[in-house]
Order: sequence, then structure tokens, then C-alpha cells
Amino acid sequence: MEAIVGEPLPAVERLAITAGLVDLNAPDVAWVLRGITSNERYVTREEKSQLEAKQEGLGRPEALCAALIPIRKNPVWWALTPDERRNILEERSRHINIGLRYLPAVARRLHHCRDLSENELFDILTWFEYAPAYEAGFNELVDALRASEEWNYVEREVDIRLRRNVD
Amino acid sequence: MEAIVGEPLPAVERLAITAGLVDLNAPDVAWVLRGITSNERYVTREEKSQLEAKQEGLGRPEALCAALIPIRKNPVWWALTPDERRNILEERSRHINIGLRYLPAVARRLHHCRDLSENELFDILTWFEYAPAYEAGFNELVDALRASEEWNYVEREVDIRLRRNVD
Repeated sequence: MEAIVGEPLPAVERLAITAGLVDLNAPDVAWVLRGITSNERYVTREEKSQLEAKQEGLGRPEALCAALIPIRKNPVWWALTPDERRNILEERSRHINIGLRYLPAVARRLHHCRDLSENELFDILTWFEYAPAYEAGFNELVDALRASEEWNYVEREVDIRLRRNVD
Repeated sequence: MEAIVGEPLPAVERLAITAGLVDLNAPDVAWVLRGITSNERYVTREEKSQLEAKQEGLGRPEALCAALIPIRKNPVWWALTPDERRNILEERSRHINIGLRYLPAVARRLHHCRDLSENELFDILTWFEYAPAYEAGFNELVDALRASEEWNYVEREVDIRLRRNVD
């Protein structure tokens, strides 16, 4: 676990990924993050078609590596109108286009936290899966995004890397 | 209360409006709706500036009438990309521009439900306040929106009219 911006989370040895309702007070748990997959926020139809044509799903047997990257953006970002946010995210930072270059090697899913309550630690939980041999490629992807204008608005980011236990 | 599309809600004589965390199991309560004010979803910066220049806040002493209009849109709407939703909502249905014509007589606030959980009854709770003498104007506003292309995607809408008790 690396705190990229702001505070880290308490260290843990493993994560449980649970679908459906989450028990925020489960025993033997250091922390719980929750999000909802929701609907598209920024992509155009053309970008969505490109993504869907190229992407692969989660759970591929060879994708033994994962990254959980929770992110919170600052109030300045959230006070922007959606056209302004889209303009920074894609027209100026190329977030969607950069991501597209790393498909299908990286599979991912976004989970939105911001509208679950006013007390969530993060706005978005991003989950990525890739094969161990692709780790350098994945690092290149996150480095490119972190160097973009959009990342000026990130006020907390934790990068948690995981390796699936194969029995 | 009038069910405009789909099922009504159980009849009630009055509503309590509560800020902050909501007890979904409060006693003597027929139903609870909850939403979060969140960030802007569709307006451009120019529209936001026009709205802010013209709108007035909630709680004006003369605004004794209110309407709570919870709305749910269908899965086809939510499968659209944000640019497609914006195109229907404003470029083709003039939702924001129609609303602007009724400011400052009508004050309003949106509450988003959709991302609170996967079990919410509605996507959005719209709350409006206006003076009794403006009722016909308010009805004209909701009629104009209901006649628009955007409303083809509404699968549930309940229109609840209220009058503030003045002691």
C-alpha cells in the first residue's frame, strides 16, 4: 500500500471483495470501503463503444494481480459543472484515451462512493486486474494519469496492490 | 397526491423534512424517501450562472405552497451516456431553459437517490416552493416538462402538493 496523496489506510494483509450490502461493523475488519457501480459519468457514446469493443471482464484466470485505488477529489472539482469536469478529464487530460491504450491487458471496474452518504472517505474506488507480466504496463498507466491536469484535483489517493492466492 | 406515472405512495396528511441521517424505521411513518444534494449533473457553466443569478432560496415566508415530486427514469435512460442524456434533457427537451422561465417565483432543490443503494424507489426527489398565487404558473412548468421528450423515460412519478401550516 502506498499513499499517493494524503493519508494512507491502516495496513492489512488481505482484502475481502463483497457484492451487495456491506456490514460496516463486521468483526476482524480494519476498514470497509463501499461503492456502487452506477451509470456512466463522462464517456461519450463513441468512447463507450471503443471501450466495450476492447475491454475484457474481471476474473480472468491469468489476471493474478489487482490494484484497488480509492480516490477523493477536492471541492473545487465537485463545484465544476459536468461540461467543465469532462473538459479537464478528457479533452485536456485524455483520461479515457489513456485508459483505452491499456485494454484489454487491464480489466477494471469503477465504484462510486460520493452519493452513498456525506461521510464517505473516498469519491471513487477503482479496481484493476492484470497478469503479473503486465505490471510495468499497469504502472505506466497510473503514472500517465497521475501526471495529468485532472490529478491536480485529487486530494487523497491510496494505491493498494494485491496478488490473488491460488490454492 | 397524484400518481403521474406508475404507482402512488401511501396517502399521508403531512410530511416531515429532515436534514442529515434518516431513520428508515422511524415509528408512525408511512414512508421515508431520502436523497442527497450532490453535485451538478447536466448544466453548463453558462446555464449555472443564469440559474444562480435568477433563483431564490428555499424558506421564503410567502412561499406557503410546496411540491415534492419523486421521479424514477427507466433503464434505457440510465444506459445512455451522459452526452446522450444531456442532449435529450436540454438540447431536445429544454428542461433547464423551461425551468429558468419560472425563476425566481419557484424555488427548488434536487436530491439524488439513485446512488444511495440499489433499492431506492426513486432516482431523484425534486422539491419546489412557491406562493399560493403562483400555483397556475407552477402547474404550467410541470406540464411543459411532462410534455417533453425527456419524460418518455420517466417510469414512475408522484406529484405531492403541500401547504405550509402557519401558526
